[in-house]
Amino acid sequence: MSTLPYRNALIIGAGPGISGSLTRRLRAENIPVIIAARNVDKLSALVDETGAIALPVDASDARAMEALFAETEARIGTPEVVIYNAGGRVRGPIAELDAAEVEQAVAVTALGAFHAVQQAARRMVPKAHGAILLTGATAGVKGFALSAPFAMGKFALRGLAQSAARELMPKGIHVAHFVIDGGVRSAQRTDPPDVPDSMLDPDAIAQTYIDVLRQHRSAWTWEIELRPWVEKF
Amino acid sequence: MSTLPYRNALIIGAGPGISGSLTRRLRAENIPVIIAARNVDKLSALVDETGAIALPVDASDARAMEALFAETEARIGTPEVVIYNAGGRVRGPIAELDAAEVEQAVAVTALGAFHAVQQAARRMVPKAHGAILLTGATAGVKGFALSAPFAMGKFALRGLAQSAARELMPKGIHVAHFVIDGGVRSAQRTDPPDVPDSMLDPDAIAQTYIDVLRQHRSAWTWEIELRPWVEKF
Amino acid sequence: MSTLPYRNALIIGAGPGISGSLTRRLRAENIPVIIAARNVDKLSALVDETGAIALPVDASDARAMEALFAETEARIGTPEVVIYNAGGRVRGPIAELDAAEVEQAVAVTALGAFHAVQQAARRMVPKAHGAILLTGATAGVKGFALSAPFAMGKFALRGLAQSAARELMPKGIHVAHFVIDGGVRSAQRTDPPDVPDSMLDPDAIAQTYIDVLRQHRSAWTWEIELRPWVEKF
Amino acid sequence: MSTLPYRNALIIGAGPGISGSLTRRLRAENIPVIIAARNVDKLSALVDETGAIALPVDASDARAMEALFAETEARIGTPEVVIYNAGGRVRGPIAELDAAEVEQAVAVTALGAFHAVQQAARRMVPKAHGAILLTGATAGVKGFALSAPFAMGKFALRGLAQSAARELMPKGIHVAHFVIDGGVRSAQRTDPPDVPDSMLDPDAIAQTYIDVLRQHRSAWTWEIELRPWVEKF
Repeated sequence: MSTLPYRNALIIGAGPGISGSLTRRLRAENIPVIIAARNVDKLSALVDETGAIALPVDASDARAMEALFAETEARIGTPEVVIYNAGGRVRGPIAELDAAEVEQAVAVTALGAFHAVQQAARRMVPKAHGAILLTGATAGVKGFALSAPFAMGKFALRGLAQSAARELMPKGIHVAHFVIDGGVRSAQRTDPPDVPDSMLDPDAIAQTYIDVLRQHRSAWTWEIELRPWVEKF
Repeated sequence: MSTLPYRNALIIGAGPGISGSLTRRLRAENIPVIIAARNVDKLSALVDETGAIALPVDASDARAMEALFAETEARIGTPEVVIYNAGGRVRGPIAELDAAEVEQAVAVTALGAFHAVQQAARRMVPKAHGAILLTGATAGVKGFALSAPFAMGKFALRGLAQSAARELMPKGIHVAHFVIDGGVRSAQRTDPPDVPDSMLDPDAIAQTYIDVLRQHRSAWTWEIELRPWVEKF
Repeated sequence: MSTLPYRNALIIGAGPGISGSLTRRLRAENIPVIIAARNVDKLSALVDETGAIALPVDASDARAMEALFAETEARIGTPEVVIYNAGGRVRGPIAELDAAEVEQAVAVTALGAFHAVQQAARRMVPKAHGAILLTGATAGVKGFALSAPFAMGKFALRGLAQSAARELMPKGIHVAHFVIDGGVRSAQRTDPPDVPDSMLDPDAIAQTYIDVLRQHRSAWTWEIELRPWVEKF
Repeated sequence: MSTLPYRNALIIGAGPGISGSLTRRLRAENIPVIIAARNVDKLSALVDETGAIALPVDASDARAMEALFAETEARIGTPEVVIYNAGGRVRGPIAELDAAEVEQAVAVTALGAFHAVQQAARRMVPKAHGAILLTGATAGVKGFALSAPFAMGKFALRGLAQSAARELMPKGIHVAHFVIDGGVRSAQRTDPPDVPDSMLDPDAIAQTYIDVLRQHRSAWTWEIELRPWVEKF
């Protein structure tokens, strides 16, 4: 039996980090989980380990997102938890950026989230039940130099999250925005030995997502910050 | 055995609402709890129910706060969790407010929090261990008309929380600021029957405080918002 | 002679309101002004009145923006002031919005601004001189219900403005973001007779843009709010 | 004749920097100016130069503030512009700060501003005319480590400014908050020779205050940021 008030979950933008930990954590609650990503091949180990179902999606494509939700519905029922982790990042001086890459970065980070929120809203509003979790970044509250496309995408995501919360929370749907501030630990990127836990542990992040999913509707979180103890901010 | 990484707790500004729920929740973890308030008489039922120890304090008085921490140390050991809930509120047109009452409101809401954070820092920094939770309000991020003193106090509290987080988190002390947005349910104030859960349930608030206390230092929350599903914001 | 430290101006997204007032105000400084819009026909009266040059542009198209800057350069020299006023707005419940219209709204509001800032940066950075003014809205700091696309676009614009300010201001280019809070007075929308000046007068807005353009680089504004005296916020 | 819509001004917390420049600028508009400070002796050169009147005040004392406004009224009429520049700063680790100094810093920075706003409101509201300008700092939007008292004071000032704006602007009184981000140039502190204008020129700051005073009520600024072109933020 799950300790969550939701019966299944769809995670979009699944990679080995936050999405991997979320998949394990949600599967440990014994609920069916679909993980969707552009490249499903990368997910085979996670699928083998957790029994989650992997589906391909180009998140920036509205029709592909619609198809993903239809397929999700067919496989595990109407999604009750939707988590959007996808993001695109291009760095460099504004004068030197490639316009098409900038458009693509904003499309994946923000428009893809809109497509997901829209599909989720269409299914959750009639049932007055569900949760939509959006993974933001410090770039969504502070626009750093040489990172304009990421700032645009993550600011837009936060605006979407706030607008969606105001519209959907009174309809019974929990919308939450996570400000992830810092690097996430991975096989490739680990803490320097002299400063343990200076990178975000994806399992620790996932735990807070689970805590938020368990919240009672009388005290829902819309926004929450997460950062390592030693992170400058 | 406690599921928390802390061995005791001191709650300042204890009333029947949030502080009451926190006391019950922390006592359920089997750790000693001291609840401090200006008027200890109001706490007798809570003390009887939970076995917490009640101590008197005028939070706005630096020496009284120092005495409270000394007494806490004597009774339950160096405090490892300090929660500051006290706040003073005066409402009215700016021209009509009583200056002394305004000063007192800011003193209880913000300066008292400083005194508590200072006493906590003196004890926690040497051990590189502890958590300081500060209960803010929407008034700390939005200054409403006819409520200047509360805005001043809660904005100041948020400034303190942010400065303390930047200084103390890298020293191993978790500092978190809670933006409580909405009315808290109590014996006197209950939900209208047609909109259930439209007021914050103090037990639900307390659960999120507990979740934050359990966080791993690689993913600590500095700030988190809590509001009822139907609350306008 | 102009009282401004800039010799010409390019205004993008020119309509009869803010852009019209800016055109008049800048032409009164006797500097050449180009006004660019999707539909140039609407600008003929303004052109006749002020002697500004109107050029067509689809702001959401990176190549069209590049062509506009090239044409501007040929006509009035390298642009020293670039003002971006274009914006797209779609309203409605998230579930009912048309995905293509949402993408278009974000493209005009935010990506078009990026294309303009990029073209401006390419020309201004080598001269270490210029000003880029971006017209935002309350929607860029608060995401309202039923207005997710506008929130996404204006949040993204603010993220762009902040990132651009951090990168370009130390290179001698003044980047400013205006939070316009309220309805702008026009021939179609006027103040209710009982509350004079309850809508933003576009001439008053333009005056503040001029004030910002005149600022000394030791005290540049990055962000400024403008709202009518009676506007709720 | 003055180009301002106000006939006199009272500046509180007058020192040689921002207040000196404001005094000169307002006197150049030919309106009577009173400058008030704890230590009036420091103001004699400014008084000699500008013809302003200097009056002593302990801004943190509500009665002294009331007396200042009464004296101002007697000397130059009901004040129509009130500018609050006073601020107290104490730095250091939270554990080491002196509680009394912290209280005093918050009192000067925030409570003194409240006393001034209250006195101004009592006089301006009946006339539905006036302007109140409050000098904030980056510390009012970001709480830095080792600077908790300044964060508390400037956050509280910003909360006051926002609450006062919401209450008083619809009553015809312009309330504006200035976020001064950076060091202000003075006889003692000047720009490093290799980075000209890297400190805020007080005359440039004063110019923007004048611009804000001239704004039409259909487009009033509540908040505006000012920082040197090279300032990190």
